[in-house]
Parts: sequence; structure tokens; C-alpha cells
Amino acid sequence: MTWFSNSKPGLESKGPSNDDQAVLALRNFLFDICNQNGGGHGGSAIGMAAIGVALYKYMMRYNPSNPEWFDRDRFVLSNGHAAMFLYALNHLTGFDDWTMDEIKGYASAKTNGYKTICHGHPEIEVPGVEVTTGPLGQGIANAVGLAIASKNLGARFNKPGFDLVQGRVYCMTGDGCLMEGVALEAISLAGGLGLDNLVLLYDNNQVTCDGPLEWINTESVNDKMRSCGWNVLDVEDGCYDVQSILTALQYANTLKGKPTMINIRTVIGLGTQAAGTFKAHHGPIDKASVEQSKLAAGLDPSITHHIPPAQLSYFRERKAHGEALQQEWDALVDAYESAHPDLGREFAQRRNGHYGTEWKDILRTIDTAQFKDCATRDVNGAVIEKMWRAYPALCGGGADLVNSNKVPYGESDVFHPSVGHGRYIRYGIREHAMAAISNGLAAYNPGTFLPMTATFLLFYIYAAPGVRMGALSHLPVIHCATHDSFAEGQNGPTHQPVEVDSLYRAMPNLTYIRPCDAEEVIGAWMLAMSKQDGPTMISLGRDPVGHVPSTDRFKVANGAYVVKEADNAQLTLVSCGTNLHYAVAAAESLSNGGIITRVVSMPSFDHFDCQPREYQDSVFPKDGTAIVSVEEYVATTWAKYTTASIGMTGYGYSASNPSNYDRFQLDAKGIEGRVRKYLGDLDGGNARMAGWRQI
Amino acid sequence: MTWFSNSKPGLESKGPSNDDQAVLALRNFLFDICNQNGGGHGGSAIGMAAIGVALYKYMMRYNPSNPEWFDRDRFVLSNGHAAMFLYALNHLTGFDDWTMDEIKGYASAKTNGYKTICHGHPEIEVPGVEVTTGPLGQGIANAVGLAIASKNLGARFNKPGFDLVQGRVYCMTGDGCLMEGVALEAISLAGGLGLDNLVLLYDNNQVTCDGPLEWINTESVNDKMRSCGWNVLDVEDGCYDVQSILTALQYANTLKGKPTMINIRTVIGLGTQAAGTFKAHHGPIDKASVEQSKLAAGLDPSITHHIPPAQLSYFRERKAHGEALQQEWDALVDAYESAHPDLGREFAQRRNGHYGTEWKDILRTIDTAQFKDCATRDVNGAVIEKMWRAYPALCGGGADLVNSNKVPYGESDVFHPSVGHGRYIRYGIREHAMAAISNGLAAYNPGTFLPMTATFLLFYIYAAPGVRMGALSHLPVIHCATHDSFAEGQNGPTHQPVEVDSLYRAMPNLTYIRPCDAEEVIGAWMLAMSKQDGPTMISLGRDPVGHVPSTDRFKVANGAYVVKEADNAQLTLVSCGTNLHYAVAAAESLSNGGIITRVVSMPSFDHFDCQPREYQDSVFPKDGTAIVSVEEYVATTWAKYTTASIGMTGYGYSASNPSNYDRFQLDAKGIEGRVRKYLGDLDGGNARMAGWRQI
Repeated sequence: MTWFSNSKPGLESKGPSNDDQAVLALRNFLFDICNQNGGGHGGSAIGMAAIGVALYKYMMRYNPSNPEWFDRDRFVLSNGHAAMFLYALNHLTGFDDWTMDEIKGYASAKTNGYKTICHGHPEIEVPGVEVTTGPLGQGIANAVGLAIASKNLGARFNKPGFDLVQGRVYCMTGDGCLMEGVALEAISLAGGLGLDNLVLLYDNNQVTCDGPLEWINTESVNDKMRSCGWNVLDVEDGCYDVQSILTALQYANTLKGKPTMINIRTVIGLGTQAAGTFKAHHGPIDKASVEQSKLAAGLDPSITHHIPPAQLSYFRERKAHGEALQQEWDALVDAYESAHPDLGREFAQRRNGHYGTEWKDILRTIDTAQFKDCATRDVNGAVIEKMWRAYPALCGGGADLVNSNKVPYGESDVFHPSVGHGRYIRYGIREHAMAAISNGLAAYNPGTFLPMTATFLLFYIYAAPGVRMGALSHLPVIHCATHDSFAEGQNGPTHQPVEVDSLYRAMPNLTYIRPCDAEEVIGAWMLAMSKQDGPTMISLGRDPVGHVPSTDRFKVANGAYVVKEADNAQLTLVSCGTNLHYAVAAAESLSNGGIITRVVSMPSFDHFDCQPREYQDSVFPKDGTAIVSVEEYVATTWAKYTTASIGMTGYGYSASNPSNYDRFQLDAKGIEGRVRKYLGDLDGGNARMAGWRQI
Repeated sequence: MTWFSNSKPGLESKGPSNDDQAVLALRNFLFDICNQNGGGHGGSAIGMAAIGVALYKYMMRYNPSNPEWFDRDRFVLSNGHAAMFLYALNHLTGFDDWTMDEIKGYASAKTNGYKTICHGHPEIEVPGVEVTTGPLGQGIANAVGLAIASKNLGARFNKPGFDLVQGRVYCMTGDGCLMEGVALEAISLAGGLGLDNLVLLYDNNQVTCDGPLEWINTESVNDKMRSCGWNVLDVEDGCYDVQSILTALQYANTLKGKPTMINIRTVIGLGTQAAGTFKAHHGPIDKASVEQSKLAAGLDPSITHHIPPAQLSYFRERKAHGEALQQEWDALVDAYESAHPDLGREFAQRRNGHYGTEWKDILRTIDTAQFKDCATRDVNGAVIEKMWRAYPALCGGGADLVNSNKVPYGESDVFHPSVGHGRYIRYGIREHAMAAISNGLAAYNPGTFLPMTATFLLFYIYAAPGVRMGALSHLPVIHCATHDSFAEGQNGPTHQPVEVDSLYRAMPNLTYIRPCDAEEVIGAWMLAMSKQDGPTMISLGRDPVGHVPSTDRFKVANGAYVVKEADNAQLTLVSCGTNLHYAVAAAESLSNGGIITRVVSMPSFDHFDCQPREYQDSVFPKDGTAIVSVEEYVATTWAKYTTASIGMTGYGYSASNPSNYDRFQLDAKGIEGRVRKYLGDLDGGNARMAGWRQI
């Protein structure tokens, strides 16, 4: 072995280049980060060091002094467990927030009081992190979203002499992401869209958590990518050869009409005793290897977190470089605003995300008379159409069910880079990717895009991991979930969500809204369009419904409100969506039969939970009278508000919608019968004291 | 146009063959099924008619008189919306249950009182349906599971002269399934495993719900399949040419070492006015086309659901053919039992799914002393190891985290057809496919395989659509979800499930069990192994925990039970999993401080909900004293049992596990503080009357 233990063979004869020294410095830094808290996911990061240098030293256009510079190239670490790779590079190149103190907090070292921006996985809230990653595969889809965003803006705003939007997207992936369905969906779509501003860097280390890659995957990744419409470039030595990686990156940027994958052969845990094996995937680095590596760099092995001054300068010059890049761009934008004043104003608007008040006025004033006997999915479609015109950030589409989802679009508005700047995205039958790509669109820049998605509520269970990451990442996306409940036609239980609401009603930061009629659909959109810190899911019915008397778009924000008040009520029925219509009819019949019944419409648990306690108590009385929820879902979500619930205890059935309301006793007659039995069982007793029950 | 309006050009010159007549008869039948109730998904079924004839008339080994014949070839309709394709063929070939009356009930025609076995999508409970399909992509993964099952049994039991298990799997897919991530995951795995008993028939009609396929997918499917290790065959004329399809199928069966896809070009809605367009995807068939087609077959267009006798005989001879096949096989099994008595007994055991009582005895008697200071994931691994030996049906594995999941396996037990009959499956980083493949394994034959899966609880959100289909289909699968709660290490909120339990606790037929210690892990396995009508998810912790006093493996079946009783208690704390340990400590401290506190362990809501009301009331008193749940999840799932809950209201944080219990006030101190405040707010008042609250 040579003095340069983890360097490429033969190097010692001519001595290391500046790039080599930088790679070594980065690796040594990563050793320290990995070991400072007894372990982390060091192996991949270490193997990817030369890739990091090629990207951050040479290739990427970014400004460490302003991580949010609009036209920066965006970097996505889809293999998010290699977080320290990103953190180390952010520190080295001089991102202000990424101080050495923060780095020392990686994985919440106790020394830092468990506070750090160096989370176990990258989190979007931190400047210099484009998207939150970790759950594998989704980062690739996020990158596709970012690439669509950039392409879309470029098609709209770029003019001869004014390449205002050229931001490219570099996405790092390991073997793991490339096995996940969401990535495969996104890759297929990216190929179809020909996103030539997207480069996927494949850290091909042939090792996963459990062992060698060949244990679990023997496919030809290159051929698979080509079959999906991608260019593929190979780099043999990805551990050391910064210039080869750079050459591939530069070449990728000359290729038009297709995204490019660069397959870069690396060694996980390079230069450690676990190198090339699954043992390098996570855990601490052996001390001997660290020592040897530090000595090779002329460093004192007993000193950690020290970047030699020459290498620090090597990286830090990116700060001035980035500032100059942004100044140039700022000047270009100024010139553009003079040359193309209208577009210039529009571009500014897209950057700041302020779109005036017309959309609000529209939502406030839409006359619901036009929606007599419409299904809520139809109303939703009409609202989308209006918002699409009034709110230029609104974009997105559906997963091949939009004729059923009632998402309107014009052929000319379809997004394809070869055609233009359309905002309608044909996601294909790729629900998970749709959600994760939407997160990428939303993450591009706050307010520049407001993505929407559409499919059946049931199929949001396919999209759930993406919806969750959007919620976790505080990204505004509007999910239009039609065909909710068993009233979705006659497809049967495979298509009837009885439990999907439970997930979304429990998901933090996501607002799940289930409106009952046109008035409440509009109210749902008022909330969804205004929400800037997370996604909204609007749950919509398939079949026509009338108006529920007293519904109020402005009261949807209360979460729940009384639509039928009654003095001395013995019973409160609470419901939402299609089932509310049956509850209203049941209340009418019950009241006529001597059981005075109030009715509450409850489109949003989240909003109700934010109301003052006095308001909550005015909706759901504390006097021991019965409060019964009615919904075509498993009922447990309602227990915190009610004394009893009418809902589903199993899956649905393949039958007509009215038949299912009858079959499962969720129509007016069924509700009335069950309520009467419940009240009979209570026998005048206190409903709260009797304890919650499913009736 | 010719007299034979939806037949192949030129056919009239020589007159239709028997196959042609059969295809036409099938199409005419499908027209009637589609139109009987004003529409269904007829287009694909019609386009696939010739494929159906090739499969059901010539290729497949099955016995209409005994749909459950063990060694049948299995057919999976992954494009489940084309259900009538399967139903019509089951009727034509003489499956007993598939009477014309049942066919007329397709999509629940009112005439049949909304009762039918002809559901909107195929449902496994019906004889002649191998798996429930509809949600796209999963059928392909189910087929992979079925193919693994057959290969695995063959490797174990087949001997020279005794090809006991030769059942092959034919899976029909449309364009949609091939876009879904779950299918792409399963395809990759099937290629890696070289499942040469699997044939995927691609109904390549180039049309999806929303429009032409090219709108959403431009990849080369053939190249993609080849890159994944599949053979690819092409059939140009899939609408008419039964013999070409058959030739391809027969050729596929000669190819060893790889699965095969047959890419069959068809026309959706062939012979109708909507042919070749998305309008043929669903909805009724135009009357003129139906008339023309019936006339072409020499039928009276006014008569529906009539199969000409010649064509009925053409199909029905399969009944005798199938009976003969099975008789031959029965004789082979008899001879095998003489020649290989031990294996013969074992084979019988696998077919009837009875594995004695040793496994029960083991579970009843495992001494938990050995698990002192083990994490529940460790205990779970130890139980798996014991069950693996005692219960030969147990099979499966994890999604590349098994070292963390603590799933034990020996190298020699890894399943690969080229090696042998190992039961351990390396799923790779493909959670969704893992769940859906498991469903295929479980669906092979009742009791022959008991599949288990393993990954982090968070990543069961990727697997959710597959887990759901298993629950809907009543398939026993054991899902081992480790690293539950925020105590999953320091990965942070991307890996910390705070809401995933809400989905699984609401999912019908799935039993979600969260044991707190070794005793309860064993109890969970007692229930999971005994459950024959649906999956179980066992939720497991990462960090070592001690024993909770008074836990009882046999009481897990009660769902909840008292682990610390107290007279005149003012408070009941209820919890599960890791958090129960903190609750017990809090109860100790509260009781010492004068607030007499009981503690309930509640590993399973599902089991508790099945208990008699008196038992339920003995666990959760109705006297108005406070009942407070404690869990590191969003708390709403608990509201039906409690007066207040301590839980999460947002996502977790990247920090050490003990730190997070402190941070989120879910350790003993945090629990005590919050309870004290709650009791203070109640001020001696009735907790039930005060209404449920998050505290």
C-alpha cells in the first residue's frame, strides 16, 4: 500500500492534483462527521466525494451567499441517508448557515443540545437543501418536478438573448432509489417529456443495506434507462477521477431532447476497512483507516473537523463565483424588464408568488345556482377552470382519470418541453410519482407553482408516501380526490376507500376537506388556495347532489358548523360529503317523529380543531345529549367529537351507489333506524357517560 | 365492410375457422355483458377475446369442475377492470358457479337484487378467480408471488418422473399496469429470480382512460422488459389470430431461466364505433356495432346472452379435458406417495395447510427471561427463527433492511429457482411489490404458504396499497413493522411514522398489534399465526426495553388488559409499545404522589373491539374518572376509548430516542406533567362530561 491509502493507484508518482487533494479533504471531513456521534450513513457519502467535487467545484451554478437564488442549478440528494455529503459540501463552499458548529450537530449530537440544521436526513426548511429526502425513490421524482418547473418557466419567459431560466437539476441516486416504484414511474415520465435539463448521477456502488446489489437486482440499469428515453453515460472511476466526472457532466449538458443518467462506478466506504461491503452502509468508520487517511493528507489524526487552508480556499472561491453569477443574472433580468416589460412583470410575479386578488374575488362570488344537481367533482372542475385562468401558478393534472375526475384542460395547455409552456401535466398511471413530482414543482421556489393532482380517493393510497413528504415538507399542493366513499360507481371494494381518510385526517400539515355541496367545494378551494405551508386534499363525490340548506363557503374555515339548528335538541347528527345529504333527510324525519335533531356539517377536522373551545362547545354540546356522526368510512376518526358513530366496519360492495347506502344502512332510513335503536339503548341516559360506541 | 364486420380482413374468402367463430362468439357475449347494465369496462375485454381463446381453449391446464385443483395453471387479470373477460370465459368453459344468471348480475344489475359473483372487479372469494384485482399494477406482483410459490414447491417436491408441481402463471396486463411502480418493482424482481414459469400477456392496445398511450408513455416496453431479464415475444395480430398467440405461448413455455412477456397488439373496443380510442375504455357499446356483429355470427341481434351451441361445445369440452388432467395428476400424486413416502406426507401437509401443534407449543412456552433488555424487534426475530423451523409454510423476507429488522435467515435458505427451495425471499428495496407478491404467495392455495414481510413501519406506507389488497382479500400475511414511532434511531421525521398506525388501525380485516415487550410479542405471534382470514401487522420497537410487569401473552387476544390495577383509581393510563414503559413509570410516580393510577396495556384495538361490553367496561371504567392514552402517534385513534390523549400533533425530530421522549413530553416526566395539568383543568369534574381532549 502506498502513502496515499485511499487514493487512486499510481497517483503518488506525480503527486496529487488540487482536485485529488480536495477529494481527500472532503473524505477526511466526512470521516469526522460520521464518527462524531458514533455513526451515520457515511459509506455512500465517502464513495461519492469525487462526484461532489465535480458538481460543487466545477459544474453547478449556485450562490452560497444566496441559496435561494432563483435561477440556480438545483441539487437533489435522492439517497438522502448520505446527508453528510450535502452538509459537508455546503460547509466547504461557504453556505452561511452551514457553520462547523452546525456540522458538529449532525444526527443531533448531544453536545449541541439536540438542535441542529444537520438532520439525519436533509430537510427542506434549511437553506441549501432543495427538498427533504430519505424515503427512497422520491428524490428522483422531486427532481423531475424541479426540472419540469425550470423547463416550463424557460418556455414561457426565455427570449433570444435572454436565457432567464436555465437552471438545471442534478439528482444523486444510489442503487436503492432505482429499485423503488416511484422512481421508475418518474423516470418513465421524464423520458417521455424529454427533460434535457435533468441529470441523474447514479452512485453505482453495487451495495445496499443488506449486502451486494446482485442479491436483489440483476437488471441492466443502463438499458432500462435507455428504454425509458434517457441518455446514458458511463464513468468508470467515480472514486477519484473528478475530471472524468466533470467531462460527463459537461457532455450531458450538450445533449438535447432527453434527460441523462451518468452511471458512475464508486466504492462504498472507500478507504475504510469495510470498503465495498454492506458494512460500510452505516455505522462508524474504523479508526485505523481514518488515521491513515489523515496522515496521507498531512494532517494530525488526532484533530477532527479541520479543513486544510488550501482545500478550504479551493472550495470557498465558489462564494465569489456564485455572487458574480447572480449579479450577472440580476442584470439580465433588469435588461429583460426593459426589453419585454409585460413579460418582465409577469416573471417578477411568478418569482414573488403574488397573483393579485382576482382569484379571491372569484371564489367569494361564484354563484352556486349554476351547480344545481352537480356532483361535487363537477363543481370542483368548474372551480379549477376559473382558478386556472386567474392564478397563473396553478399547474398539474391527473393520473389518467381526468375525464372522471372532471379536471378540465385544453389540448394547447398540455405541458411538453418540445411544444411550450403548458401547465397541464399528463402524469399517466403513476400516482406516487404524481404526488412526488408535485412536491418538486412546489419546492422550486415559494409561490411560483401551485401544483394540483387528481385521481380517485382510493388511489391516493398509492400516492400516500408522496403526499406525506409534501405535508412533512410544508409544500402547498392541492390534491383533488374524487369518487370518495363507496359511492364511486360500481367498481366495488377495490375502488372504495373506507379507511384512506383515516390516514389523511391523521397526517400532520395536510388539510383534508370533504365538502358536501357546491358552496363547500368553493369554501374548500378558498382554504386550499390560501394555504402556504402544506398540502390540501379535497375529497369529492361522484354522484350529483343538491345543495344542503345553510351551507356557507366562508364557514368551511370553521371546520364544522351548524346547518340545522333546533332548540332543545335531543340529538346532533354530524356528517360531511355525500352522506351529509342523507343525514339531513334523516334529521328531518327524526324531528318530525318527535326526536328533535340538529345537524352539523363538518368538512374539515383540522380547521375545527383550531377553533376556540367556546365555538367547539357550541357546535358539539356538552350536555350529555347524543352526538352521532354519519359517514361511509370506518368511523373511528369521529370519536373525538361524538358519543356514537355510524360508519363502515368492513369494505364496501360492488353495487350501485344508492344500493350501497341502503345495503350499509347509511341512507336516511338506515341512519334513522340506527339512531332510534341507539337512543332506545341509552334509554334517556347520558350519552357521554355511556361511552362512545359504533352503532 | 364485409359480412364479418369485426373480423380480420380477407377472412370471408375462406370462411371463419372454429377459432374465429369462438372469438366472435366471445365478443358477442362480451357486448351483451357490457350493455346489460348500461356499461362496464368492455373495450379491453373485447380486444382481448382472441387471447382468451388461446389461453382457455388451448394453453392453460385447469379444471372447470374444480377451480381449486392444486396444480392448475393460474390466470391473473391484472387489468381487473376487464373483469367480464374472465367471467365470460369462466362461463363458457363451464366453471360451475359461473351460470348465465350470475353473468347477468355483472356490475350488480338490479335484476339480480344486487347480489352476484360477477363483481365490478374480480374478487378472490369467488371460485375461478385467483386474486382480487383492479388497482393497477398489483396483479403483476400477485402473479410473481404465485410463480414463486409454484417454483418453490417444484424445487422441493418434484423428482425424476414426478413433475408434481408444474403450474404456470399467466398474467394479463394492459398499458396501465405497466406504468405503475408496483409492477415495475415486481418485474425487476421476477427477472432477477428468473421465474420461467411466468408469462405476462401484454394487451398492447395503446389506449388508456384519458386518450392514446403516447400522451403519457413513450418508452420501449420491450426493451425495458429485456433490460429486467425477461424474454420478449411479439404477436402482431392479437385481435384475431388465435394460433399465433398460441404459438407464442407455447414457445414461451420452452424458454428456460427467464420470465417471458408476450407483447400482443390489439384494438380496444374492436368492432365498435369507439374502436381504438379511449371512448372504448368503458361505457356501453353502440347498438349498431352489436347488431352488425351478431348478424355476422348468424345470430338474431334482438337476443342477448346466447352462445351458439357449436361455440359452447368448443369451449365446454375443456370441462372433460380438465377433469382428465386432474385425474392424471391425482394418480401421479398417489404414485409419488408410494415412491417418496416422506415427501409425499410433507406434500400433503403443504396442500392441506395443517402443520401440527409444535409451533403452538413453542409459542405457549417460550421463556421470556432470555429476552431481558431486548428490543421487541429482537424478540420478534427470535420468534421468527423458531417458527421458521416449526412451520414449513412460513416464508418471505424483507425489503433490504433485515439486519435492522432483525429477520434471521441462513444463506442456504434464500429462495432462487436456480438454487433450490429456500423460503427466504430477498425482496430488494421494493416495499409495495413485497406486499403484493406476498398476497400472491398466500393466494396460491390456502395454508400452503404463510408469507411474512419486514421493513420499517414508516415504509409500510409505500406498501400500503398491497397491504390493503391483502386485507380486502382475506389473505393471511404477517407484516413485521420495526422501528415504529420516533424512537427509530436518529433518521428524523422522514422515517418516523406518526400517522401510519391510523391507516392500519382503520383498515378492515387487518389486525394491527403493537406489543410492549417480549411476552406480548409472543402473544402477537400466537394471534398472527392463527389468523386465517387476513393479514396481521406487528409493530415493533428499535430500542431495548425491559419487561412490563403483568404482561401476558395470552391476554394479547383480549386486545387490552390491566397490567396495574388499583382500588379507587382516579386515573387510567393506557398505552402500548415502547411508550407503555414510560406510562408505567408515570403511573408509579403519580400514585406515589397521591393520584392513584391504573395502567392498561392495549396492544390491539381490533381484538379489544371484539370483547363483550362487560369486559370492555372493566378495562375502561364508565365512572367519569379520567382515562388517558399515551402513544408517540397522532392520538385520534384512541378517542373512542379515552377521555383524553397524549400523543403527537406534528411530525417527529431527528434526535436520539430518549431525547425525543423528552422533547415531545412522552417520557414519564412529560406524561405526569400533562396528566396533572389535565386533572387540574378538570378540577374534580367528570372527565367524560368534559369531552375528549388532546392534552
